[in-house]
Amino acid sequence: MRATYMYGAGDVRVIDVPDATIKHPTDALVRVVRSCVCGSDLHPYHSMPTTPEGSSMGHEFLGVVEDIGSDVTTIKRGDLVIAPFAWSDGTCDFCREGLQTSCRHGGFWNSGDVRGGQAEAVRVPLADGTLVAVPASVGEDSPLLPSLLTLSDVYGTGYHAAVKADITPRTTVTVIGDGAVGLLAVLSARRLGAEQIILMGRHTDRTALGREFGATDVVAERGADGIAKVKELTGGDGTHAVIEAVGHMPAYEQAVGVVRAGGVISRVGVPQYEQAPVGFDSLFGPNITLTGGPAPARAYIPVLLPDVLDGTVEPGKVFDREMPLEEIADGYKAMDERRALKVLIKP
Amino acid sequence: MRATYMYGAGDVRVIDVPDATIKHPTDALVRVVRSCVCGSDLHPYHSMPTTPEGSSMGHEFLGVVEDIGSDVTTIKRGDLVIAPFAWSDGTCDFCREGLQTSCRHGGFWNSGDVRGGQAEAVRVPLADGTLVAVPASVGEDSPLLPSLLTLSDVYGTGYHAAVKADITPRTTVTVIGDGAVGLLAVLSARRLGAEQIILMGRHTDRTALGREFGATDVVAERGADGIAKVKELTGGDGTHAVIEAVGHMPAYEQAVGVVRAGGVISRVGVPQYEQAPVGFDSLFGPNITLTGGPAPARAYIPVLLPDVLDGTVEPGKVFDREMPLEEIADGYKAMDERRALKVLIKP
Repeated sequence: MRATYMYGAGDVRVIDVPDATIKHPTDALVRVVRSCVCGSDLHPYHSMPTTPEGSSMGHEFLGVVEDIGSDVTTIKRGDLVIAPFAWSDGTCDFCREGLQTSCRHGGFWNSGDVRGGQAEAVRVPLADGTLVAVPASVGEDSPLLPSLLTLSDVYGTGYHAAVKADITPRTTVTVIGDGAVGLLAVLSARRLGAEQIILMGRHTDRTALGREFGATDVVAERGADGIAKVKELTGGDGTHAVIEAVGHMPAYEQAVGVVRAGGVISRVGVPQYEQAPVGFDSLFGPNITLTGGPAPARAYIPVLLPDVLDGTVEPGKVFDREMPLEEIADGYKAMDERRALKVLIKP
Repeated sequence: MRATYMYGAGDVRVIDVPDATIKHPTDALVRVVRSCVCGSDLHPYHSMPTTPEGSSMGHEFLGVVEDIGSDVTTIKRGDLVIAPFAWSDGTCDFCREGLQTSCRHGGFWNSGDVRGGQAEAVRVPLADGTLVAVPASVGEDSPLLPSLLTLSDVYGTGYHAAVKADITPRTTVTVIGDGAVGLLAVLSARRLGAEQIILMGRHTDRTALGREFGATDVVAERGADGIAKVKELTGGDGTHAVIEAVGHMPAYEQAVGVVRAGGVISRVGVPQYEQAPVGFDSLFGPNITLTGGPAPARAYIPVLLPDVLDGTVEPGKVFDREMPLEEIADGYKAMDERRALKVLIKP
């Protein structure tokens, strides 16, 4: 079968690999119907050291179950399933608490002997815990597929950011970053009732979608100018919640600059730094809470699925390009050069 | 009148200063009945640059109202009052939200023209918002005074740490630091129902008081050994909540080491660092929340006062030395050398 591998920064190839097969009784074999490229795939795309063996890619996909192991009971052949970006047993204490990213027996795609979703098929470990089947009425050519695919990662991640930020109808919010996660954090904040949602981003096509998703204000400026603008929009105080959906230090500094005393900074952009200011002058003095992390997307699929199925929300609008698996290297390039917001892949 | 000033690291003196008087219609003049030395006073005691004018000291006191400005309505002459470690108007949006440390018109003792509590008397700004009167039945020689005085800072601060850490009856907690704040965080965690409270501290007289306040386990080891011990006591996972009541980097690192995935680190020790690890390997990957800050002690006085008045709790046990104001320099020294846990001052 064909699968995507990265061999170093900027070097993405679709190659022949042995067909995915069932290995364990708890596995499912899923034929990929849609996958996509993630903003977080761009981090190794910038910095991965060259390796001859390469690394399999992709952690967002939906597909049809072709086969199941003998212990799988909740998923059957023919089901159209959503795979969250971490696999998990669904039964341990962390899973029961809704923190499947810390599952005691789970893990992430593209590590160990588990391969990625930017491929024709995937062996899914712990299928009962990991996969969520959508109703049989949704076919392989449903117009809902792009929106369903966002439940693998970006919508769940935006929602996690909003949940961890304690957003309520009395909350004002700043969302830093106009990528797919930032835009879906806007949608999530709106869903949770936030009265003011300021989107910080400078790509007008993206911020236009942000307004459609519920942003009440857009701030294109960055750094000190951007902070001043948010302060101006909030009577000088900043917002109760700040969602940081980028992962670079300037975005963190921006977050500290625009959060209101007593507020929350919720991070879902994977931090590209280890040390950051957290002392008296940044977080401690004004009683700021710093939270967030990898979203337990699996926990949010049942919560978010109904509104996607009935069309109340259309998170799939973040996909602005579609291409076949064989052309995925162009998809990475288009996203890296900001010519595409998010690229949908059809194997 | 006599008042305490610090002139540089290790240089504490009681000097003559002009009598405190009413300056604004919202002021109260309070004759100090009890004050004390705080663990946070030891930070300048270690590092303050020498200055000829010195700096007034003390931010915890209770006393009798001697005079009030013409606008003061809720406090009257003769009231025995508790002063929290920040003064605040009690009417702005931050005060109404219970974040009096960010009051729009408030401030901290020993800044601007406001002097400190390690003195014979204090001018209290915004007296209606700042001060809380205790029932008239409590006299100037009541045995409750030490416990009432902890409501100025250390009990409220320990309680703030526990509240921000979301402690419930299902929570396991590690408290780092066996100073007065750490011990009162133990008491607070017990009050909120925590099922396991691990106190990290190596002064056996202090940890004995910690056990009396509700600690279920004591870990004397520090660094990697201390982390291993806490892990051992928690099935390898660490605790849901960690209260960091020290403020130095090793305590922060300890907190990161013993917090359970999905858990909360709540800081109330004033950070003596600005940068700290917060990236994928410390906070982000396991979805750890970092919270805390200066406690809005004013908000907690009405919550905590009843149990102090009826003797349900005795937070005043943290005072293990008492001395007159004139000897306060010895009090600083005793606390700095860990010969005293917390020193009560009787002007």
